[in-house]
Amino acid sequence: MQKHKVTFLPDNITTMVEDDTTILKAAEQANVFINNLCGGEGICGECRVQIVRGNAHPDRHSIEFLTVEDIKKGFVLACYTRIHEDLAVSIPVKSRTGKDKIVLSGSPVVYSKPEKVFQQTGDESISSFDPVVSKIYLELPEPTLNDNISDIDRLTRALQKMTHLQKHDVPLPVLRNLARVVRESDWKITVTVAKHHKTGRILKIEHSDTANKNFGLAVDVGTTTVVAQLVHVPDMKIVGTEGSHNLQARYGEDVISRMVYACNQGNMDSVHQSVIKNINELLHTLLTEHNIKAEDVNAVVAAGNTTMSHFLLNLPPCAIRIEPYVPTASVYPQIHAEDLGINIAKQGIMEVLPSVAAYLGGDIVAGVLACGIADRPEVRCLIDIGTNGEIVIGNNEWLVCCSASAGPAFEGAGARYGMRATSGAIEKIEIRNGKIILSTIDNVKPRGICGSGLIDIIYEFVRNGIIDQNGRFDMSRQDRRLIAEEGDPRYIIAVAEDTDGGQAITVSESEIANLIKSKGSVFAAIKSLVDYVGLTFDQLTDIYVAGGFGSSINISKAIGIGLLPDVDTEKIQFIGNSSLTGARMSMLSTQALEKTRKIASRMTNVELSTYPPFMNEFIAALFLPHTDSKLFPSVSYKK
Amino acid sequence: MQKHKVTFLPDNITTMVEDDTTILKAAEQANVFINNLCGGEGICGECRVQIVRGNAHPDRHSIEFLTVEDIKKGFVLACYTRIHEDLAVSIPVKSRTGKDKIVLSGSPVVYSKPEKVFQQTGDESISSFDPVVSKIYLELPEPTLNDNISDIDRLTRALQKMTHLQKHDVPLPVLRNLARVVRESDWKITVTVAKHHKTGRILKIEHSDTANKNFGLAVDVGTTTVVAQLVHVPDMKIVGTEGSHNLQARYGEDVISRMVYACNQGNMDSVHQSVIKNINELLHTLLTEHNIKAEDVNAVVAAGNTTMSHFLLNLPPCAIRIEPYVPTASVYPQIHAEDLGINIAKQGIMEVLPSVAAYLGGDIVAGVLACGIADRPEVRCLIDIGTNGEIVIGNNEWLVCCSASAGPAFEGAGARYGMRATSGAIEKIEIRNGKIILSTIDNVKPRGICGSGLIDIIYEFVRNGIIDQNGRFDMSRQDRRLIAEEGDPRYIIAVAEDTDGGQAITVSESEIANLIKSKGSVFAAIKSLVDYVGLTFDQLTDIYVAGGFGSSINISKAIGIGLLPDVDTEKIQFIGNSSLTGARMSMLSTQALEKTRKIASRMTNVELSTYPPFMNEFIAALFLPHTDSKLFPSVSYKK
Repeated sequence: MQKHKVTFLPDNITTMVEDDTTILKAAEQANVFINNLCGGEGICGECRVQIVRGNAHPDRHSIEFLTVEDIKKGFVLACYTRIHEDLAVSIPVKSRTGKDKIVLSGSPVVYSKPEKVFQQTGDESISSFDPVVSKIYLELPEPTLNDNISDIDRLTRALQKMTHLQKHDVPLPVLRNLARVVRESDWKITVTVAKHHKTGRILKIEHSDTANKNFGLAVDVGTTTVVAQLVHVPDMKIVGTEGSHNLQARYGEDVISRMVYACNQGNMDSVHQSVIKNINELLHTLLTEHNIKAEDVNAVVAAGNTTMSHFLLNLPPCAIRIEPYVPTASVYPQIHAEDLGINIAKQGIMEVLPSVAAYLGGDIVAGVLACGIADRPEVRCLIDIGTNGEIVIGNNEWLVCCSASAGPAFEGAGARYGMRATSGAIEKIEIRNGKIILSTIDNVKPRGICGSGLIDIIYEFVRNGIIDQNGRFDMSRQDRRLIAEEGDPRYIIAVAEDTDGGQAITVSESEIANLIKSKGSVFAAIKSLVDYVGLTFDQLTDIYVAGGFGSSINISKAIGIGLLPDVDTEKIQFIGNSSLTGARMSMLSTQALEKTRKIASRMTNVELSTYPPFMNEFIAALFLPHTDSKLFPSVSYKK
Repeated sequence: MQKHKVTFLPDNITTMVEDDTTILKAAEQANVFINNLCGGEGICGECRVQIVRGNAHPDRHSIEFLTVEDIKKGFVLACYTRIHEDLAVSIPVKSRTGKDKIVLSGSPVVYSKPEKVFQQTGDESISSFDPVVSKIYLELPEPTLNDNISDIDRLTRALQKMTHLQKHDVPLPVLRNLARVVRESDWKITVTVAKHHKTGRILKIEHSDTANKNFGLAVDVGTTTVVAQLVHVPDMKIVGTEGSHNLQARYGEDVISRMVYACNQGNMDSVHQSVIKNINELLHTLLTEHNIKAEDVNAVVAAGNTTMSHFLLNLPPCAIRIEPYVPTASVYPQIHAEDLGINIAKQGIMEVLPSVAAYLGGDIVAGVLACGIADRPEVRCLIDIGTNGEIVIGNNEWLVCCSASAGPAFEGAGARYGMRATSGAIEKIEIRNGKIILSTIDNVKPRGICGSGLIDIIYEFVRNGIIDQNGRFDMSRQDRRLIAEEGDPRYIIAVAEDTDGGQAITVSESEIANLIKSKGSVFAAIKSLVDYVGLTFDQLTDIYVAGGFGSSINISKAIGIGLLPDVDTEKIQFIGNSSLTGARMSMLSTQALEKTRKIASRMTNVELSTYPPFMNEFIAALFLPHTDSKLFPSVSYKK
């Protein structure tokens, strides 16, 4: 069969492919990352690439994502373009953001009191510090004829005084080295103990005092992004945080398409291996950057939605997808990280936070832990906006939650210049006197717009009369930035010469419609759940907003577009990646880890797809801020 | 270097060895078993072989074990004879009993009431039947939208009703298959559960009802003999029992020489592998014989002395040997049998019964469990006579024990025609009117004498005036059977034409002296321990005698020679291999297994080597029956 050589630029990576292979497949084969939200279905338009040598014609399906100008310049969609000769393909920055650093946090995150211990300051009470894996230095008395109990009894006798655990399991390999290590080290040893329920498991025994060499990795396995945070356990300090795109994206952007792919014969393992690769790469970066040895990382605690948790553990998620939506497990066993090929200490352990149901995972449980709403009598609310919007309302007596398919609009998908919250993303916008003032992540030339920027744009557009409250452009405006392009008007946010890619960054009417759908879905979910429990928004003491918008969102503007309910802005707090925070808390405190299991078992799920009022709420919310203006008394736009 | 070919007969196995290699080393290299009690030190004389082709001269050290007749016939000791040319070496039956079947039991063993459940009859109450590994058939309700908990929650919800365990751990590999198996089997499954403390561990999940396919292996790992018993768990029936010589014998007969060998760099693993090979061979024989699949054996429960337990688990026993005599562990973790290479079901588990101290192992703990002395208020005694003699006295409130180095005399070592209790061993002897009446195991031609036969011989000799009460032959007798050989008179028990080997079976004066030392050591230990707790023999309600003498011992004769105390013979019961019985009980009842841990922790060890009265007791016991005749009022010999 005829073969063709494909060269990917700017990295100059070449691969040989068979005739009729798509550019996306070729890139996969060459291990070159191209953005791709839909799993290669020609739906998302994220995989734009430029043919710079050779010929390849855009398929008719991809025309809608390309302007005439694009086509002239050789742009095609990688997923829909087949290779019939040798090619050189340039991947624009926007299509290879997978290699970029994700902005992870930055906003000061203030948790409710009981969790203060987990802040970076470390100056609070440490009453609940009780890590999943602790290292304990012991000086054992040498055995004598009058005290000649076995080596392991001698060790556990001393250990018990420190851990207060009734029982310590000792795996055979550890036991086999014990007699030698205690004698070689003159009975001065450091014992690494993992806790699981009320039992300690001795992971390793080392010479002399190495108690300070104890790190843990908290991981948020998101559908779109995987974030890992390295923590120095003894003083609870965050060493560093790294994020990357979930490599599973090549198997489909959303969980459903990944499940479909994985549940085909033989595909499960590659989907599983993707996320393991993600974690190992992040871990490697963190270790290298901070000069820490992998053998000193003793624990991984991960949080993710139910499907991600299944993929992480290589548990088939096939029954999650179909009625009656049954996961294999919702509480996961403590395992050896080694069994998954995660490159921490040989005997190191891994915990995956428990899920509630098929579509309500450990990420939201972690969020509830992080914001502490399950601890106090006041009724509070957590809104976690990711690929799905998840809402929890409750207190120390009850917790109800729901999940709404918000779509990845606020993560930058579905809009031509939408992007994840990485370097160069426009995260804040203000239109003052017709002038657009914007700021980007890392203060570099803009490359696109992330979630918080999109919220700002819609708010500023409607406030300045650029769009009406239905999200339609006022075409009567005399505005050079407004372009009546191909039946879908666009507005220029940044002109070509100001941007990184040399292309104007724009937002179109259909993209705004998409964002309105997303915000409508999230708000309808909040409203439905508040109604379901018979409360009003004012009765919520606090509203915590979590998600990957960027370093922060402008709360007033999020209310202004009707994404968040119109309550006193003082009550609303943006808490960033609460899934990661919950994972870190669980790593530093087995009490917290135990609490995630209680939270998960206490949460009642309201299935919105079978809850009739939801659809009406959704339709009512497809307006800026809302068709029922009484719900947003503080918001008024000049007509 | 020059090489020589050595052929071992009768199996016709050849090997090439370097010049100056000993025949014993050559046999080891060829994987040919030659008896060898002393680890090749030229002390035991057990490794007699016959050179049938080529020349090899007996070393001067071996002369004492060979008669002039032997030397003429080409007999040498394998351990002391070096190879300098091609040889053919015949291994006499007596030197290769390693391949023979050991007689394991046969006497009706009656246990105290609470343990009756574990007898073969199976018609007793099964209140404490609660096996270490059970198989439970479940028909699960199919999930619905109203009941869509995770697969594992559905399983454990049903399982909990059966096991009453609060928690069920599920290893990841089991979890990975769960979703598929429950759906393929229409929610009708059999779950294999191992119990460990209060937690269940799910080992496997199978289609449909396989609960009846559940076997367990009880193993007694003796220093000399390894015995394995296959049990059908659901109805507690013994399927079969097999025994073989401990293959570690090639590294030394006693635990001390094996420890010395094992603790030399790199030798540990081969000593460990020997006993694993023993167990796998016995298992294989049992499975083949009874047409049972290895995958249906889910548990192994083993009992052995502390050193054997360490070798079994590949735990270095090096600190056991030297003051202050510290084992690595006395309570052993539950492990996967697979991790040791034991060929049962892939996820099958193994328990090793707990030890008390360096020289007081799980075998005696198993014995205490088996005879039930820890259960009732009456003070009872267990005497287990193996390579060591171990004594326990106690009741449900206290237990004291001691261990005396009896030597392997009653296991057939140290006497030229002594042998283990295998086929052809003389196990009973009576001298009536000067005529010797004897019976052998399996009623075949005699090959040697086992422990119970040796007890009978000494008793009959002294009763008939053949020896005096010091164990010396009356050389004034007119007795054709008495031969004044080389300063160590011998007595012919069976004439050459009546025996299997065609050689007369004899007992010498020095061998009798050796037996008297052994019986003196055991009795002195019993007496010391009874004195230590301030009791008299009469205050012991029952005395249980365990050990590998043969199918039974003659209690009156054992009293007659002063091995056992002179109490009402009704009080003394021979219970056979109590270590094996205890292992079987622990396999069938986690309550029993839990009890072994309590028994071990309750036992107080009296160290006889540092207990001054013991040496006096020992010297006083070197007489038949005893220097203090008041201790044996029922025994009187004609002067």
